[in-house]
Amino acid sequence: MTLVKDQQMSRFLRYQSTQKLQRLAEKPFDLTAEGNLTPERLRGFYAESCGYRLLYGLECVTDEVMQALGELSQEARVPEKMGKMQAGEVMNFIEGYPSEERAVLHTAVRDFFAHPNPSEVARKASQVAKEEIEKLRAFIEEIDRESRFTDLIMIGIGGSNLGPKANFLALRYLQKPDRNVHFISNVDPDDAAMVLRGLNLRKSLVVVVSKSGTTLETSTNEEFVKSRFVAAGLKPEEHFIAVTGKGSPMDNTQKYLKCFYIWDWVGGRFSSSSVIGGVMTSFACGFPTYWEMLEGANAMDKAALDPDLKKNLPLLAALLGIWNHNFLGYPTEALIPYSQGLERYSAHIQQVVMESNGKRIDRKGQTLDFQTCPIVWGEPGTNAQHSFFQLIHQGTEVVPMEFIGFKEGQTGEDFEGEGTTAHQKLLSNMFAQALSLATGKKDDNPNKVFPGNRPSHILLGNRLTPFSLGALLSFVEHKVAFQGFIWDINSFDQEGVQLGKVLAEKIINRFAARNGKGPDRPYPLGDALIEHLDKLK
Amino acid sequence: MTLVKDQQMSRFLRYQSTQKLQRLAEKPFDLTAEGNLTPERLRGFYAESCGYRLLYGLECVTDEVMQALGELSQEARVPEKMGKMQAGEVMNFIEGYPSEERAVLHTAVRDFFAHPNPSEVARKASQVAKEEIEKLRAFIEEIDRESRFTDLIMIGIGGSNLGPKANFLALRYLQKPDRNVHFISNVDPDDAAMVLRGLNLRKSLVVVVSKSGTTLETSTNEEFVKSRFVAAGLKPEEHFIAVTGKGSPMDNTQKYLKCFYIWDWVGGRFSSSSVIGGVMTSFACGFPTYWEMLEGANAMDKAALDPDLKKNLPLLAALLGIWNHNFLGYPTEALIPYSQGLERYSAHIQQVVMESNGKRIDRKGQTLDFQTCPIVWGEPGTNAQHSFFQLIHQGTEVVPMEFIGFKEGQTGEDFEGEGTTAHQKLLSNMFAQALSLATGKKDDNPNKVFPGNRPSHILLGNRLTPFSLGALLSFVEHKVAFQGFIWDINSFDQEGVQLGKVLAEKIINRFAARNGKGPDRPYPLGDALIEHLDKLK
Repeated sequence: MTLVKDQQMSRFLRYQSTQKLQRLAEKPFDLTAEGNLTPERLRGFYAESCGYRLLYGLECVTDEVMQALGELSQEARVPEKMGKMQAGEVMNFIEGYPSEERAVLHTAVRDFFAHPNPSEVARKASQVAKEEIEKLRAFIEEIDRESRFTDLIMIGIGGSNLGPKANFLALRYLQKPDRNVHFISNVDPDDAAMVLRGLNLRKSLVVVVSKSGTTLETSTNEEFVKSRFVAAGLKPEEHFIAVTGKGSPMDNTQKYLKCFYIWDWVGGRFSSSSVIGGVMTSFACGFPTYWEMLEGANAMDKAALDPDLKKNLPLLAALLGIWNHNFLGYPTEALIPYSQGLERYSAHIQQVVMESNGKRIDRKGQTLDFQTCPIVWGEPGTNAQHSFFQLIHQGTEVVPMEFIGFKEGQTGEDFEGEGTTAHQKLLSNMFAQALSLATGKKDDNPNKVFPGNRPSHILLGNRLTPFSLGALLSFVEHKVAFQGFIWDINSFDQEGVQLGKVLAEKIINRFAARNGKGPDRPYPLGDALIEHLDKLK
Repeated sequence: MTLVKDQQMSRFLRYQSTQKLQRLAEKPFDLTAEGNLTPERLRGFYAESCGYRLLYGLECVTDEVMQALGELSQEARVPEKMGKMQAGEVMNFIEGYPSEERAVLHTAVRDFFAHPNPSEVARKASQVAKEEIEKLRAFIEEIDRESRFTDLIMIGIGGSNLGPKANFLALRYLQKPDRNVHFISNVDPDDAAMVLRGLNLRKSLVVVVSKSGTTLETSTNEEFVKSRFVAAGLKPEEHFIAVTGKGSPMDNTQKYLKCFYIWDWVGGRFSSSSVIGGVMTSFACGFPTYWEMLEGANAMDKAALDPDLKKNLPLLAALLGIWNHNFLGYPTEALIPYSQGLERYSAHIQQVVMESNGKRIDRKGQTLDFQTCPIVWGEPGTNAQHSFFQLIHQGTEVVPMEFIGFKEGQTGEDFEGEGTTAHQKLLSNMFAQALSLATGKKDDNPNKVFPGNRPSHILLGNRLTPFSLGALLSFVEHKVAFQGFIWDINSFDQEGVQLGKVLAEKIINRFAARNGKGPDRPYPLGDALIEHLDKLK
């Protein structure tokens, strides 16, 4: 952790607990040392809430490290900040510079169960969210009654695609037999073209999702799909619905069968439990499935308010991540769900984590003197074992792992062979990977040596259901928020995507000029790249 | 790059060119400095072969760096080693220890076009590969004639899943309207259960792929699927075909309609162009599509033999990767294809790269004193822009990028809005991202500052076709081999996956004992994890 010149040391590096942790990291717990990794350790090192256990006996931590991490969360006033966030205080801000200055209230869109947040701001937010959800419930009932639609085409990108798509795959086992869902996201026209192949548009509902109503990819795809409806002699306004901000160009019931609202206090990457994901989930699996997911998310929201590390899973995971990244110095972390239902979970989590915490200035605009967000990546196990686990075991980059597994499968369909079910084989592989990464193995053949001490934890649940999926989404959302609080950064904006948009507009203008459909505004660097297209052999 | 005690410095660190590159890396080319990044640079810094251009003007390199990288490839005798590999010399070995001692001849399974390799070993390998391909062609013709099958279920994992699945998505635009393909990979029974839902088994062909014929996941899934065929009153031996090694338990025409062979000189991760991928591609898109893919792969194989960096794209990419990883110190690299057809390309490439080069010993079994394989990750653009590009632009981890784009779309279906096509918008975004990462941006608001100097290169092709897909696969396969040659490691084995298998077997035995179906062989660490399943609330 090197210091940037001419500025004060960051708040994070000044904490007493940080300094204690730096000392502890000089000689971390050795999982390979005789007698260190015991069954008792594996039994005792766990936390529990909302039906999940987080087993962390395979992390390179001691009681002393855990104590210091707890102190870090106190010094950074983490539980207090989570309380403020869920109460609707303005948490999306940079001090002393123009910034978004907004509340961060994705918890309010699911605060409909026990012990709702008492703050007036949160209560009002919940109220308007509930209205949209009731509108959605009524709309879905109407659709079910009329049986007009068999297919839903969801047009959206980023948070309006990754979360809903991951959720769809995770809940597909509950999909109604007469309902299909398709996603269009990329501005690459092949995306829409391939989705539209063979679809019966007459029976298709299209949901277009854009908070601003002006997202380039989404409006391009909307117009593309609309043109196909028109070509098929269908009226788009009888097939298209919108999820958008009030007053956006898409807030128009002349153009849409229905408009659902979303607000600037629900960030895109935190919106999969809002109506944005709700339309798709309710259409495909029924409204009660969506409602159950909200209940699970809400349960984990409440657990995130608990100052006790043994019950606050997202806080514990946040601190373990900070230990591995900031103190042990590992630049990435891998998410490996041992559950085929979570096959695109990591693609969603990449956005939640890296768009939130991929920042380089603190709350006061000062450039940071330590590493913030790690690279997060992963694929489901056991598949990943047959892909990149060679590097995880024997590569030179150490990758802290988050394993996720469930006691039971989703479908209940299983196959027993040689005395065990396939699901037991799945869990056996997950446990075996975590253990072998920790213990390593000595051997006279250097190619059969495993260095060990590669840390991991396991998030263990009963079964991947709408409830546990909701809890899992909330778990990651809060883990990210906690890390942002500790690093003293704003996890809730995304200024880093702006420059690319500006330059893309300049290059789009160059193409328009080449097409004879726009003014000639020189951009020599852009032209130099475009010219290569003409010269390809 | 720190040294490990009590051993000789590695060959890689002893090269003169390595030392020169270390010096050059102390003050790398500054893309943000006035006058450094010019249109001329972008025009001139490219290499070309097989219909692709690799644009590297946005890497932090100078002519001097490129010169030294060229010297590195000479010092490491890289072109010579590629020649030996393609000629069939034993390249999969560790000196002085038991190792696989095999040739590495995935190039032979497509060496059917101009200038076949003259070595006898390669020629013989090509011959046996050609026989299997001719068997496949005849089998596909028979299937086409009989119209017995509409669906193909491909059961396999790792190289028997990731490459074929990525290729299927990339070539889906050529899919025959009456043909569907489904993949079963994970030992999670929900994977097979969900694929089988609603499938007409009577019209389904199943291809089971396992070189050894004993892969846990694959045989479990095979038995699961087989039980469904039997339950439906169908005879598995009339629906199941095998791709396996000669003499494996699966080499049995009593049990399979057909057996295709694969050999130990084609590594799983390098097998997507062999019959392993060929069955699926030919079934879904016709045999000529598969053949064209082989032709493209073969063209890039020949280009990989060219000592001229300006024509040898995989070698150039290998060297740029080494510059970014070993000399500039960036621990990961991202693959961002601006092509929806390549949506699962990076999942395949993760295996090719990280299973090959995620190693920590050299060819003589000595522990290495530098970092080998980086973490490779990525998702398609423009989707990725709305996910993790915040971190790419403004995070504290610098991520070298490989962009891939094509002059034209696959389907030819496009939509023009405001003077440009969607495909032009797609390319504009790719170019804009690469430029903005390089140039960065100054601003008075620290949240709007982009530091720049984030290196990337762009691989530009005409169109994603079977030919260019084949060339792209070969490009990565050889990039990986080149990096392995330079690091002096064995890129062709995967000992790192063994320990997990052994421990998984021990834990499976614990479950079997719990089920009352196996002997009680104590494994206290495994039990301590399993017990948490019983205690979940």
